[in-house]
Amino acid sequence: MIFSSKLIEDAVMAFSKLPGVGKKTALRMVLQLLKMDKESVLTFTDALSRMRNEITFCKTCHNVADKEICNICDNPSRNQGLICIVESIRDVIAIESTQQYNGVYHLLGGILSPLDGIGPEQLTIQSLVDRVKQYKADELIMALSPTIEGDTTVYYIAKQLHGQAVNISTIARGIAFGGELEYADEMTLARSIAKRLPIENYISVANMQNK
Amino acid sequence: MIFSSKLIEDAVMAFSKLPGVGKKTALRMVLQLLKMDKESVLTFTDALSRMRNEITFCKTCHNVADKEICNICDNPSRNQGLICIVESIRDVIAIESTQQYNGVYHLLGGILSPLDGIGPEQLTIQSLVDRVKQYKADELIMALSPTIEGDTTVYYIAKQLHGQAVNISTIARGIAFGGELEYADEMTLARSIAKRLPIENYISVANMQNK
Repeated sequence: MIFSSKLIEDAVMAFSKLPGVGKKTALRMVLQLLKMDKESVLTFTDALSRMRNEITFCKTCHNVADKEICNICDNPSRNQGLICIVESIRDVIAIESTQQYNGVYHLLGGILSPLDGIGPEQLTIQSLVDRVKQYKADELIMALSPTIEGDTTVYYIAKQLHGQAVNISTIARGIAFGGELEYADEMTLARSIAKRLPIENYISVANMQNK
Repeated sequence: MIFSSKLIEDAVMAFSKLPGVGKKTALRMVLQLLKMDKESVLTFTDALSRMRNEITFCKTCHNVADKEICNICDNPSRNQGLICIVESIRDVIAIESTQQYNGVYHLLGGILSPLDGIGPEQLTIQSLVDRVKQYKADELIMALSPTIEGDTTVYYIAKQLHGQAVNISTIARGIAFGGELEYADEMTLARSIAKRLPIENYISVANMQNK
């Protein structure tokens, strides 16, 4: 693509650094900004640069935060003794969007993966162990990827917490609500039959969804 | 989607104003900016705000420009007597990217469309007529949409230039290079047979492509 304006070219190059944005898409975005009035574009660029410059990471859970402690850890109406262990901020947004979880989080920053050079020191596992000891957490819910690396991480954390009076659970896995049996993978289907629930549980879960 | 950080939320909302960007894509973009160092993000936002604040429109051809006259109109090695009439900046970028055209452009800013309230006053037609008279242009190449509105616009411009010593042509339409006959629409195929070219023309065009 050849641009007759250096300003347009720079803006297109900037957008095409974003994931999934090619030059044609970047050009569409630039032309959209050209259509917007100058004040809206200022609001746009301001939101991005403020986000990058002012964001911090919560000292307790390592989530992104606007101040030293994030809104979730800072909220007295949330159960600080129930900690959900996740990999990244995406998982927090997904769980928060259900509006069903009232505990807090701990972001590991990834999962153990020796091949990629990610050991316990690269993750926030020690911080989690300290947190459990210091704040006497009641329960940890492991919400990590259902892969060998995820399972290894769960096992490693459980080992580090041996002797602590804390319950460890993992999120339920099975056929999704609205999911069709014929499209489920064999492992999920097999495990969802093996780990079947009494009908009372099913009804209470369904009620929660309809609340 | 529920965000625990206002900074992240504002940035996601900013990105989701762009065309074709939903909230999930916007979040991916925001997380990408978070991974970049602060200086790169500054370069990014700077390119966008400079583009919006400093861009002007060329007084001659109405293309976007970094100064009063755009790079193309300002280039003495380009044929200022050959003017390609297009709708928008996208068309200029597409033609420039072929690296085969050595004339200049005139951007109409759209095409005549009475139903959408676009008459000759909303476009830069008068400016084109003045330009042709003042600079004694040799040829105008019409590169507008092959629609009723496009044809009306071509006809209207030709009428306005009646009596001027200027040739008016339109870009060739037909089956694309590499296009398969069976997938071409009937009108294109019928016209490309009716307006067939002598084989010498075909060879010279093919050579130009391989240059």
